[in-house]
Parts: sequence; C-alpha cells; structure tokens
Amino acid sequence: MVNAGIVGASGYTGLELMRILSGHPGVALRCVASRSEQGRPVAAVFPSLRCRISLEFIAPDTAALAGCDVVFFATPHGTAMQAAPPLLEAGVKVIDLSADFRLQDAQLWSTWYGLEHTSPGLLNQAVYGLTEIHRELIKQADLVANPGCYPTAVLLGFIPLLEQGLVDVTGLVADAKSGISGAGRQVQLNTQFCESADTFSAYAADGHRHLPEMREGLQQLTGEDVGLVFVPHLLPINRGIEATLYAPLLNRQVDLHAIYAERYQDEAFIDVMPPGSCPDTASVRGSNMCRIACFVPEAGEMAVISVVEDNLVKGAAGQAVQNMNVMFGLDETAGLLHLPVLP
Amino acid sequence: MVNAGIVGASGYTGLELMRILSGHPGVALRCVASRSEQGRPVAAVFPSLRCRISLEFIAPDTAALAGCDVVFFATPHGTAMQAAPPLLEAGVKVIDLSADFRLQDAQLWSTWYGLEHTSPGLLNQAVYGLTEIHRELIKQADLVANPGCYPTAVLLGFIPLLEQGLVDVTGLVADAKSGISGAGRQVQLNTQFCESADTFSAYAADGHRHLPEMREGLQQLTGEDVGLVFVPHLLPINRGIEATLYAPLLNRQVDLHAIYAERYQDEAFIDVMPPGSCPDTASVRGSNMCRIACFVPEAGEMAVISVVEDNLVKGAAGQAVQNMNVMFGLDETAGLLHLPVLP
Amino acid sequence: MVNAGIVGASGYTGLELMRILSGHPGVALRCVASRSEQGRPVAAVFPSLRCRISLEFIAPDTAALAGCDVVFFATPHGTAMQAAPPLLEAGVKVIDLSADFRLQDAQLWSTWYGLEHTSPGLLNQAVYGLTEIHRELIKQADLVANPGCYPTAVLLGFIPLLEQGLVDVTGLVADAKSGISGAGRQVQLNTQFCESADTFSAYAADGHRHLPEMREGLQQLTGEDVGLVFVPHLLPINRGIEATLYAPLLNRQVDLHAIYAERYQDEAFIDVMPPGSCPDTASVRGSNMCRIACFVPEAGEMAVISVVEDNLVKGAAGQAVQNMNVMFGLDETAGLLHLPVLP
Amino acid sequence: MVNAGIVGASGYTGLELMRILSGHPGVALRCVASRSEQGRPVAAVFPSLRCRISLEFIAPDTAALAGCDVVFFATPHGTAMQAAPPLLEAGVKVIDLSADFRLQDAQLWSTWYGLEHTSPGLLNQAVYGLTEIHRELIKQADLVANPGCYPTAVLLGFIPLLEQGLVDVTGLVADAKSGISGAGRQVQLNTQFCESADTFSAYAADGHRHLPEMREGLQQLTGEDVGLVFVPHLLPINRGIEATLYAPLLNRQVDLHAIYAERYQDEAFIDVMPPGSCPDTASVRGSNMCRIACFVPEAGEMAVISVVEDNLVKGAAGQAVQNMNVMFGLDETAGLLHLPVLP
Repeated sequence: MVNAGIVGASGYTGLELMRILSGHPGVALRCVASRSEQGRPVAAVFPSLRCRISLEFIAPDTAALAGCDVVFFATPHGTAMQAAPPLLEAGVKVIDLSADFRLQDAQLWSTWYGLEHTSPGLLNQAVYGLTEIHRELIKQADLVANPGCYPTAVLLGFIPLLEQGLVDVTGLVADAKSGISGAGRQVQLNTQFCESADTFSAYAADGHRHLPEMREGLQQLTGEDVGLVFVPHLLPINRGIEATLYAPLLNRQVDLHAIYAERYQDEAFIDVMPPGSCPDTASVRGSNMCRIACFVPEAGEMAVISVVEDNLVKGAAGQAVQNMNVMFGLDETAGLLHLPVLP
Repeated sequence: MVNAGIVGASGYTGLELMRILSGHPGVALRCVASRSEQGRPVAAVFPSLRCRISLEFIAPDTAALAGCDVVFFATPHGTAMQAAPPLLEAGVKVIDLSADFRLQDAQLWSTWYGLEHTSPGLLNQAVYGLTEIHRELIKQADLVANPGCYPTAVLLGFIPLLEQGLVDVTGLVADAKSGISGAGRQVQLNTQFCESADTFSAYAADGHRHLPEMREGLQQLTGEDVGLVFVPHLLPINRGIEATLYAPLLNRQVDLHAIYAERYQDEAFIDVMPPGSCPDTASVRGSNMCRIACFVPEAGEMAVISVVEDNLVKGAAGQAVQNMNVMFGLDETAGLLHLPVLP
Repeated sequence: MVNAGIVGASGYTGLELMRILSGHPGVALRCVASRSEQGRPVAAVFPSLRCRISLEFIAPDTAALAGCDVVFFATPHGTAMQAAPPLLEAGVKVIDLSADFRLQDAQLWSTWYGLEHTSPGLLNQAVYGLTEIHRELIKQADLVANPGCYPTAVLLGFIPLLEQGLVDVTGLVADAKSGISGAGRQVQLNTQFCESADTFSAYAADGHRHLPEMREGLQQLTGEDVGLVFVPHLLPINRGIEATLYAPLLNRQVDLHAIYAERYQDEAFIDVMPPGSCPDTASVRGSNMCRIACFVPEAGEMAVISVVEDNLVKGAAGQAVQNMNVMFGLDETAGLLHLPVLP
Repeated sequence: MVNAGIVGASGYTGLELMRILSGHPGVALRCVASRSEQGRPVAAVFPSLRCRISLEFIAPDTAALAGCDVVFFATPHGTAMQAAPPLLEAGVKVIDLSADFRLQDAQLWSTWYGLEHTSPGLLNQAVYGLTEIHRELIKQADLVANPGCYPTAVLLGFIPLLEQGLVDVTGLVADAKSGISGAGRQVQLNTQFCESADTFSAYAADGHRHLPEMREGLQQLTGEDVGLVFVPHLLPINRGIEATLYAPLLNRQVDLHAIYAERYQDEAFIDVMPPGSCPDTASVRGSNMCRIACFVPEAGEMAVISVVEDNLVKGAAGQAVQNMNVMFGLDETAGLLHLPVLP
C-alpha cells in the first residue's frame, strides 16, 4: 500500500484527489491538510464524502506529512516550492499540482507568477508530468510537476503534429474553453452563479499563465521557437475543457487521423475519435480520458484539432494519480477506470 | 460471476446500468438489447463508453437473453409484462425498472397506464424492490419490481414517520423536484434545452403515475387509507431528485432526528443528515446514496423531511443493482461504492 | 417627469431598477448611489448598460438624494431605516425594497433581523406595497415597504383562498423555490457557480426571515392566527420564483379557477392560467407578470396553487416601479410592459 | 404604421420577432403564420405572450400576407424562395431571415443547401442585410436577405481589419460558439437538455453552411480570395454567440482599438470595448447590441478579435427589424432599445 497525503485538500482539486484516492486499491489515504479547514472533519466540509472518509483536515505540517510515501500538493502557487524540499529530503515523493515546478526557468516563472522562486535548484530535478510524453522520466522521479489543465489538452493535441514536423510552428492558435471549476474553490465575483451562468466570454486574451508552460512544452519537442497564441474562455459548466487547435499545414497530403491513431494507440487514457466526429466534454466527465479529433477543413491548409478532457481529472487529479502509479510501479490505470457520468 | 443482460439499454437508465455493471466485480455483462439501436456498437451510441464496452446492441430476443442469470428491463411500461414470463420460466431472474409490476392491482395499473395488463398473475409474485424495506423478500425473489424514482425518495422519507405512527396520514404532502433525465432519452419538445433550461415549473399537479405506487407503499405500512398529495416539478439539472415532505404531527414531543438515525443506522445507502443541515442533490450525484434531513419548523405541528437521491442511481439503476446483489447473495454494496462527482 | 434616485444601486435589484427606470417614459433617473462603487461609472461596473447610462455612482448622500421626487432603497436591511427619515422630511417619497419597514412590530423585526430598529415610529406610517392588495393606501403613501420576493408570490397565491374563507388557515404550507439572484450580488461560497449549478436543495427549513412577513400579511386578511410552514429552496437559475402552496379545503365544492379568475380579472400583472396548465418561471423572465394556477388534485381536500414571478421584477424592482406609478398618479403599467425574454 | 406579418412565427426567431414588433411604436403586427400551429392562439403556444398578443396563427397564405407592408420569413431554408416572389409582385417588402437569398451564386447555394434554387433571378436583387455595411442599399431594397447569426458576428469582427488591409486574408480563423437556440425549436436528440447541458463540443468542423456566406461577405470587401477556417461550437446557454477571430497581421505597428472605435463610432448597435476587456454574451442578452474587443497578444503577429451578440436579436430578429426601420425610413433604433436582462 502506498501511503498518501494531500496538502490543500479543501479545494476542488483536493476534493477530486480524495475521491480518486479513496477508491484506489493500492493506496491508503493517510492525511489531508488544509490551512483554512484544519480541525474540521472532511465530511463536514464536503457532505458528498459523508460515510466514506472519516479523516479530519490537519494543518499542513511537515512532520505529519513525512510519514507518507507520496504527498500531493493541490495548493495555490507559491506553497509547494517552500514545503516540498523538506519532504523530498525525508524521502517522500512529491507530486505538485500547482505551477511551482512546471517551468525550467526561474526567471520566467517569476515574471508570470509575481514571486521570487524559493527553490530554483529543484526546477531541473522536477519532471514535467505529462505522462504520455515523459513516462520514462516519471518512473525515476521524486518530484513531479503535474501539468496545468490547459497545457495538458493543448500539448496532447499539438504533439503529434509537431513530432512529425507537419506544421508551421510559428502560427499556432489554441482557442480553449474551460468549465468554472478551473478557477478553483475560492470565492470571487466573476465565478458567482449569477455572473457566470448563461454567459460566455474570452478572458486573459493578452496573456495567461499557462502560455509559457505550453510554449516550453512545445519547444522541447521541436527545438525551435514556437509562435503560439492562446485564448482561454470561461464556459458555464462545472467541469471540462475543450481546446480547438489550429496549425498551418506544410503539406496537404497527410492523413491526420492515421497519424494520431498510431501515435496514441497504446495509451489507455487517450482516445482518438473516428473521422468526422467531435468529442464533447460530457463524454469524459469524471473520467481520466482525453479524447481527440482531427480535421482538415475543405482539404485545405489548416489542421484543426479538438481535444476534450475533464480539467479536474486528466487536467489535474487524475493525471497526478496516473503519475503516482508510474512512480510506484503500479498499473498505470489503477484507481482511474471511472466511467464518465452521463447524462 | 453473475451473467447479466439489459433490455432497453439505449435509454438513460440503460446507460447507467451499463456504467455500473461494467465496473461491478461480480458481474459479466453479456448482452444489451435495444430495438431502436440493434446492430450498432454501444460505443457508437454512447461515446462515453468508448474503449470500455465493446458489445453491440442486439434485438430484444428471448433466446439470447435466456442465457443470462439476470435480465434488467429498462424499457417503457408495457414491455416487461410481455417479455418477462418466458425468461422467468427459463430460470432467469428479472429486475424490472419499468412500472409493469409495481402495483398489486391490475385494474388500478390499467387505469393509470392506459393498457390492459398482460401478466396480472405475476403481480403478486413480484417483490417491490425498495431494498431497505423489503430486503428479506428480495432475497427469495425471481421477479423484482424496481421502485420508481419519485416513490423511492418519498417512501424512504415518510416511512419512519408512518412506522412509528407519529403523523396524521390523511394530510401528507410530497413536493418533489426531478432533474430532466427522469423524462428519459426520447426526444420531446418540453425537454429540449431551450424549453427546460433556466426555468422551473410544477407539472402533472392533478395526477402523476407514481402517485398510486406511493400510496400503495404507504398503505402497506399503515394498513390505513393514506391521504397523499404529490406535486412533481421539473428541475433544470441532469440528475437528482429532491422531495420535501410535509406531515402533520400527532405529538410535538418527538425527536425526529433520533428516530430517523436509528431507523436507518444499518443502511449503507441512507445517510441521515446532522440536525439543521439540508442535503443537496449534488451530494449524491452519480452515487447510490440517499440523504435525508428532518425538521419541525418553529417546534410546531408539521414534520418537514427533505430527501435527495440521484434519480438514475438510487432511483433506478443503482437500486436495481443493489437488489441484484441481494438476490444473488453478493455483498449489498458490491459495485455501488462510487463517490459523488463534485463539483 | 418624476426625478428618481436609487441607493444601493450596485446590487442586482439596483441593476434591475436602472434597467426599468431608464426605459420608463415618465421618469428621469437622476442619481444612483453605491457606497462600494462610488466614483465609478455605472457602465464600468455593468457593461450591459454601456452606451445607455452615463451616470457615475455617487456616495449615498442625503443632500444629493433630496433633489429627487422619489428614492428607491435597494440596500441590505438596516440602511433605509436610518437614511429614509431625513428624505421623508425633505418631502421625498421613499420606496424601500429592503425589509426595514415591512413588519408592523419593531420587536418582531429585531428578533428576525438581529438589529434594534432605529425608526419604529415609521412602521405604522409605511404602507406595505403589495400593489394589488393595498393600492388605495399606496396612492397616499410617502413611504412604501416593498414586499419581499417570496412574500409577493406566496401572498398573491394564498389571498383569494383566505379572503373567501375556503381553507383551514392553521395548516398552510408554502414550498418555494428561488433563482440564485435572490441571494444578491455579494460574494459567498454557496452561490459560487460550482456550488450551486447542477444541484438543488432546501435551505432555512427551520426559519426564514420572510416567514413573519408572510404571516403578518395573511393575518391582516383573516384576523386570525395563521399556521404557515414555509420552506425555501435554491434553484440553479438566475431569476424566477415558483411557489407551490398547499391549503386544506373546508369544502370540496368550490371552483377554484373561477374564484382566482374573478379576483384578479382587473389586474394587469396577474395572469390566472387556464385549468390544467402549470406556469413556468421562464414565462415571466424579465417581466412584471405573476402567473397563478390552481388545482384540487383528485377532487380531494387539498387546494394546490402554483405561482411564478421574476424575483427581481414583480418580486422586487418591477413591483417597486408599479408602486411608484401608483404613488405619482401615472398609468400603473408605465415602463413595465417588457415581454418575457424567451428562450 | 407599418403593417407587418411573419411567416414561420412558431419558431424561436418568430417568437423573438413577435416580442420585438409588439413593442415597436411604429408597427402593427397584422398576421403571424405557422403551418404547424395554424388555428391555435399564439398565447396558447407561447404562454409568455399571454395577455399581450391576441392573434391566432394562420396558414402561410399569400392573400392574407399581401395586405401587409412587410413580411418577415422566419422559416427553414427553401420556403421563402418560393413564397416571396408573389408577395414582392404584390408590392410587399420582404425580409428573409432564412438562407434563401444570402448567396449570390445559385449553384453554390444548391451545393450547400441540397435543393435547387427556385428563384435564382432574385439573388442579385436581394440586398444582404448586414445593416452597418449595406445601409444605403437596404434603404432602396424590396427584398433583404437577413444575415445568418454566425456571419453577423464574424463579419462585423473581421471587416475593419480587411477594409484597412491589415491582415493576411489567406489565414483567417473564426472559432465561434453559439447558444442552443441557434439550432431552432424543432425537436432533436442533440439539443435535448440532457444531451446539451453541462457539456461543450465543436461541430461541423469540416464544413458549416454559414461558411460560404461569410466567405462571400469577406471577398466582396477585399476583391481577393479569402482563406477562412470556421469552427462552430455548441454552448450550453439559451442565447448568445461569441466568436474569437484570429488574423495574421501584416504589420505590428497598428492601434487596433483606435481602428475599431473609429470604424464603428456612429453605430448605435456596435460597442467597441475598452482596451483589455472582453465582452460576455450576457451583456447583450435580449438586446440588439454587438460588442467587440480587439487584442494583439504579446504585441505579436496575430490580431485577436472577440465579438458577442445575441444570436436571436442582432443575429436574427433584431437585425431584421433594424433593416425594416431602414427600409421604411424609421429611426434605425425604433423598437430596439431593450436593455440586456441581467443577471
């Protein structure tokens, strides 16, 4: 049994980690920490967990967490970079679902996140946890930087095109739409029901923190500078990301579907849709599946890729558990075979 | 392994049975039948099941179904009463999720459902599958009439009051609200998104088919005529029923919470909420749990009970599998421990 | 032209007052006050008003407001009872959409609202602004206490039954459901999208502040003590209240539909639905209409009334403007003939 | 008074035309036709119009319609091309909200709509009713082809860029999202609540009927071939379109905001947002306003334009009435100043 702990467990990502880990056959959930809810029973904060999880939230305390084999950080950025080092020294593996270890460049990180990075030395040690791409490195990792929700969808969608050198990488566009849980559980005006239901808009069109993460991920593949425009939108649903990707083809004579199908044929959590069909976010709701469709409209010069995932599962907690499975030598799908809840 | 079949598998209840049974450790899903979708792969109709269920829909054919140990009917009313008898004769256990075997009185059934009953002789043999109440009979049953979604919530809510003789049974009110999946997957105007989203109304205020079922269930308990007014409402959510029940107390000096907590203390799927809190439908979304809260406003003369369930799980497919577990001597919770998906 | 001002204009009720008054042919909107937004252009806070309202929010200042003919208070409780007296003395008419002047009994008010009432002497002078019932008094009033959203629906629904002495007033039940805008625009966890979308629950089942207001309204009609149980529920829609009312009939031989149709035949904003149909909240969305249907299920002993209104219009800003029209001798429907926006 | 008629009045566009025209000070709504609802009172089909519209639906009959000054067609494609000619001969002006007269090329029309065009001779006579662009022609027109909902948003968004020659017109992308009312009021599976709520997907990624209309509109401006990729998505809201447009800039040294603000400065129904802000669909809900924001992310090489409109108003019925106002010499804003209904 892998003994697991969660820091920041009172947010939506933490809640999703509790849902997944409490049903994982190879994991014992030992402790869940939350600064704001410490001392309260988990089931008092989340009635959906009544009768099933009897833990209380504890303070995020190194001593308690050091007894775990793995600790997940589901905290806002700035926490894990301070709390991870002593745990790593104590031999605990760390999976950070925040942004703290996702970029290789501490300076770039500071620019986008507005803080000095306190553990720049760990950036090279951290493995970027896009499981399908970095599986071999993850097996050896002690510290995994779990990808952001948008980057997971956008990278999985673009990668086959870039690996094969099929597109002009200076003109990439990612038009992405996220359910509101992506904004987290903190209270704010624009995510109040009356401000966000029955409406839709773009946001952060002049720059979103996930952009440098995507760019870095793409540049690692190509070794070239990548020109990527990323526009996120807020979608009035609880869960789900859809990203429609546009990439100018260098050559019209390609069978995109065949390329995607072959690239992902051995992946349990990536489903390439049949030609002509578009996936919808509900088809992955509550599951760790990512579904991808590809098109070349009017047999023209633009590749169009539509990717869906559940932002809280494949885009956060599910991929984190997938990485844990890889790190501990468990079956990669263990605890992750929930079927989507539909309708 | 229990070999299971489903008839009417292309509706929402059928889809939910497939979701639950495909993850049940003691069940092999052998065949799924649908008159309208026969010949198509299940995964072509329901993309959420891609990569996980490889069956094709077959025609609802006795020969094929007779190889199963148990067959679930998730059909409109009028089908199971014709198709169940040959299966029962062939030794197959039948769990009918439609209304065909829920009433004891064939004449009353015809009045509400507008058809002659073709198997009136089976009505007495059928066990009403409200598991928490009729568990001992269900153990012996070959034919279980799975309760309607509204009756499950209303009966579980009223039963402790009526068993203890605490209320005037001539003045019961059930104000119930259901998510739209309760109307099924057939196409109709009033369940189109634009007709049912962002709105709310009562319906069938002068008589709903679940009323005689509830009344029969309550009268069996009390042996008296029961005066029950039931008003259903359509709620703009996919899943979930909330029923607020009102019952005039005969005696103000009762501790309702203690009565409910004791009545249901051994039930895995009934959760009596702490005093002062109201359950919400999301807290049971996708799970087989039913949550109940009880109040006596202003310490007055009216008991108020709020009950929530997922209409497709505890109100349909989940309770059907719970009954199957009881019928086959499996752990009653097997395959049913999904945690609610939140948010 | 009636010169109008609004205090508390940055909430949803204030926004709705601005929407209605800016299109009212007999009103000039002179000033809008908001403590939190003072100094900001209205259109910066509410982009929907861009190009149409060029005012800035001012501080809620008596001198500025005293130049108006009428001032609307769309403030939390506790504000109008302090700010109204100097305006009244200056000859300004006041329409208070908060709870400050709704109850006749200052002691009862303090019990429910947790504050000492600072203007108890005004309580008798204030006219309760349920227009259809108190129209003659409103004509003369300087201070109108605009009814709460729930009381408007519940009183309009019960009144014909009580006026005619048709029901046992000791056993009334009001099961009401409100869209989330009823909770106002302040930021809080339970009205975040992810906490309130795709779910439903009762709340305040042991006592809601609108209960004494309803009870007082009903007792004025009957002269007797009224036994009323009121259970509100939170509905995942922006706007709209549906209240289903239950009242034990003293006599089965009544034609409820005829009684309601006659009672409200001259009312422009009350629509009694044809027998057998239930109104839905979308049919009044954005309009000042209240629709009512009545039933006697199974020709039994219980009257069932379903009432819908838009909580922000007939339940707040619309009724306030209707009262203003009456107070100033304008056509009662002036500025209020918006058709519902559907779908 | 302009005497107006509507054909196809029982759909959502027809309903919206009734809502707008019944409040228009210069219009008398004379007759509303619907093949499927003929003989029924309008208010029986649409309860929101009870007490306000007393017409009955009639059959779509030339004789009855010929008494009107203007007839709106809110029919599926294929109807107006047959019914318009006799009305035009009778001197009735026709505004067609369907696709029948939107393309100049009958052959192209047939390819996309799958029918032979029965009035190809009228195609050149019809004026494309994008009011802001073709106002002078509309003044003289007898037959106006009202633009599609998507083309209205996409064209208004791209036009300033193309008029100024700022972008590479071979690499345009329009990623558009529409509320479900865009699919009309006919009953179908994919627009059932349970299939379309709480989900999101692209559709028609390999070719949508609005694409040739957009392309024709853009090519008229530029005189060059335009390379446009258009991917529509279905959004779980009733009303509203957001289109995010991407266009490669030929020159980074442009002040996009200034260009848009100047281009649309005299337009009553186009609102260019302040730099840095993105419009949301709710800010135009129920109104004829179109809001536009423009960005150049990271001061790079791609222009990004976000456009919102209410698909049933500016994208259909509102623009049709705007065109009627122009055709009859009325104030262009008459009957169209509804403020958005928020929240």
